Amino acid sequence: MEQLTCYDCGETFPFGDAARCRCGEPLWFETDAAGFDWRDASGATAGGVSLGRDTLWRYESVLPATVPDGLAAAAGGTPLFRAPSMESPDGPRVHLKVEGVNPTGSFKDRGTAVGISRLEGPVGTVSHGNMALSVAAHAAAVDREAIILVAEDTPDSRLAMIAQHDPHLFRVRGDYGRLYDDTLERDLGAAFLNSDAPLRVAGQKTVAYEICEAFAPDAPDAIVLPVSSGGQASGVWKALRELDAAGLLSAVPRIYLAQAARCDPIAQAYRRGASRVESVEGEPTAAVSINNADPPSGNRALAAVAETGGGVVSVAEEVMISERDRLAADAGVSVEPSCAVATAAVRELTASGEFGSDDDVAAILTGSGYKYGTSDTDISSVREVDRTDVPDAVREVVS
Amino acid sequence: MEQLTCYDCGETFPFGDAARCRCGEPLWFETDAAGFDWRDASGATAGGVSLGRDTLWRYESVLPATVPDGLAAAAGGTPLFRAPSMESPDGPRVHLKVEGVNPTGSFKDRGTAVGISRLEGPVGTVSHGNMALSVAAHAAAVDREAIILVAEDTPDSRLAMIAQHDPHLFRVRGDYGRLYDDTLERDLGAAFLNSDAPLRVAGQKTVAYEICEAFAPDAPDAIVLPVSSGGQASGVWKALRELDAAGLLSAVPRIYLAQAARCDPIAQAYRRGASRVESVEGEPTAAVSINNADPPSGNRALAAVAETGGGVVSVAEEVMISERDRLAADAGVSVEPSCAVATAAVRELTASGEFGSDDDVAAILTGSGYKYGTSDTDISSVREVDRTDVPDAVREVVS
Repeated sequence: MEQLTCYDCGETFPFGDAARCRCGEPLWFETDAAGFDWRDASGATAGGVSLGRDTLWRYESVLPATVPDGLAAAAGGTPLFRAPSMESPDGPRVHLKVEGVNPTGSFKDRGTAVGISRLEGPVGTVSHGNMALSVAAHAAAVDREAIILVAEDTPDSRLAMIAQHDPHLFRVRGDYGRLYDDTLERDLGAAFLNSDAPLRVAGQKTVAYEICEAFAPDAPDAIVLPVSSGGQASGVWKALRELDAAGLLSAVPRIYLAQAARCDPIAQAYRRGASRVESVEGEPTAAVSINNADPPSGNRALAAVAETGGGVVSVAEEVMISERDRLAADAGVSVEPSCAVATAAVRELTASGEFGSDDDVAAILTGSGYKYGTSDTDISSVREVDRTDVPDAVREVVS
Repeated sequence: MEQLTCYDCGETFPFGDAARCRCGEPLWFETDAAGFDWRDASGATAGGVSLGRDTLWRYESVLPATVPDGLAAAAGGTPLFRAPSMESPDGPRVHLKVEGVNPTGSFKDRGTAVGISRLEGPVGTVSHGNMALSVAAHAAAVDREAIILVAEDTPDSRLAMIAQHDPHLFRVRGDYGRLYDDTLERDLGAAFLNSDAPLRVAGQKTVAYEICEAFAPDAPDAIVLPVSSGGQASGVWKALRELDAAGLLSAVPRIYLAQAARCDPIAQAYRRGASRVESVEGEPTAAVSINNADPPSGNRALAAVAETGGGVVSVAEEVMISERDRLAADAGVSVEPSCAVATAAVRELTASGEFGSDDDVAAILTGSGYKYGTSDTDISSVREVDRTDVPDAVREVVS
């Protein structure tokens, strides 16, 4: 498990020696999963007590870390369920993978759990969102110092959510985008679990292991997910490569990525037919968690789409917002706007004929909508009523 | 599964005929679990696809409902892990059961999922907190009308969170406490899944099934949980009775309940050695989710404690708040204040010698702290730094 490789040029490096390949592309763990079988995946046990659910540690044999005590043991093992209310007459069967039920409310806990279980000493991350919260919480659980570098304009409410886990929090003035590279290139005395770090990608891949195991011995026809840095897309692709090598996929699911149209560098490259992503000047979008104008694993995400025969979809701002509302009102799932692009993309791909009624599509809902509030929700329909009038008022609305 | 019984006088009723026993006590489902074995519990499948984790539906054979499509399929199956950072030198091994990772962020999803899967037509609840959110979300997922009756002073931010799932929301003026009985006694044209409804208690019991299965073939020495209406305590007791009858417990875990000292009618009755709970005049407390001055299943909760040899603990307001902060900073788990009374109680029971270093104690953390925000978190320690100064600033704090 100790070798890192470049997906593009194939060069290899010992783990720890390099953050990027000489060709400039990101690295990931070389995993020998050829002998992996679903029977190898079993509920993990920690300290003689079995964990309360099948977490990502059921795939310990293909992870570069061992099952820990504490919060990290609780990551992954999220529910996947079919949501008929999100399906359209001629559309595919839609299965929702709800990552918002991870310990800190997002998919980021997978990579954080694997990373922090493998690393020693202080950890850090460049994020003002889900990854910042995840790293801060998991570091606290193992009494590790956490360095969280947030953008200067991060709102206090979000800082407070992160601060409860007692990390070292820095509001950084200046070019926040370049901070990511800074933490790759310089030794800051802390291991940075950024969004496409090899250890994080190794953890993030487990979501695709879970999805495919749910369909085994078949496989879903497609997996649709939001894309930002490309780290999660890389993890999903890595999982499919490993499971395919192990002969566990009846067919390799196509990977479809979704972006907010206001900041969609990967979608633009896809439409150009390019294999390289160019940075863009994004506009402000409600999809703050995927608002990445210069994705570090963008090229790898494009390769994942090309190799699996998928695609990349841009979702208009208003479509994304109404899709978020639809997920809450029709499927009972509260998500942040960034997640809603996934099921919005399913609709667009259905409308364009890419998905049909014979398809099983798994949409990854990356984060919970509860933790960031829903201040734009209309509450004008709330009725005021005296207790004694409740029976009549209720009968009126249900009759 | 169709018989309801009174835990106290033993009288039985067909399901649907009564909300309360003639003796005034709450009813629960009579479940024949005598033949139940852990081998009967297996990952549930819905629509030919296995659910992504072992949800509460692995106990379908002892539930009064069958596995559904959609959100309800995702309830339960929460992680249980040992948290060394929450243990004290002479104290017990502390295992945290994190219910905040349920689909709507609290333990309430268990009872809602079972209830809504069994009921038809409109559903309702009297709650302005976790149960309101849970019922609204699960009703939305199955296109059911939901009647949510909240207190007049419920803040808009909380209404917005509930409203995103598009229920019929009523702000009720007048004696909110009596609304609970109103919905029991009158036919409002909707089935009310209140906190100690038999269907809810049947769903809530699954948390204890999960805890005990994690320790099988042994059992934890004690289960500690916050208590409000007594519905969850009843569910835990019901599970232990069923598992004991099935011969699956090496010893029956003791049930310990925790309340906020500012509103602790069950704790007061326990200290009096009474078998009946008297309503109290509670003071305002940050433990809004357990601020129940007249618990409908209080007597049953007391019986659960007495029958298992446990106890009831009152937790001072400032101790509860500091315990909440400790859970976030030391265990990486964000909880609402109402949950923190559970681990605070573990400390007090350790200090009093009730728990020792040989004991395994499972503490149920009933709800996530993320969804209601952490406005009182101190963010004065956040540092402002220029990007170019980050390396020095980081090395300074980690060196």
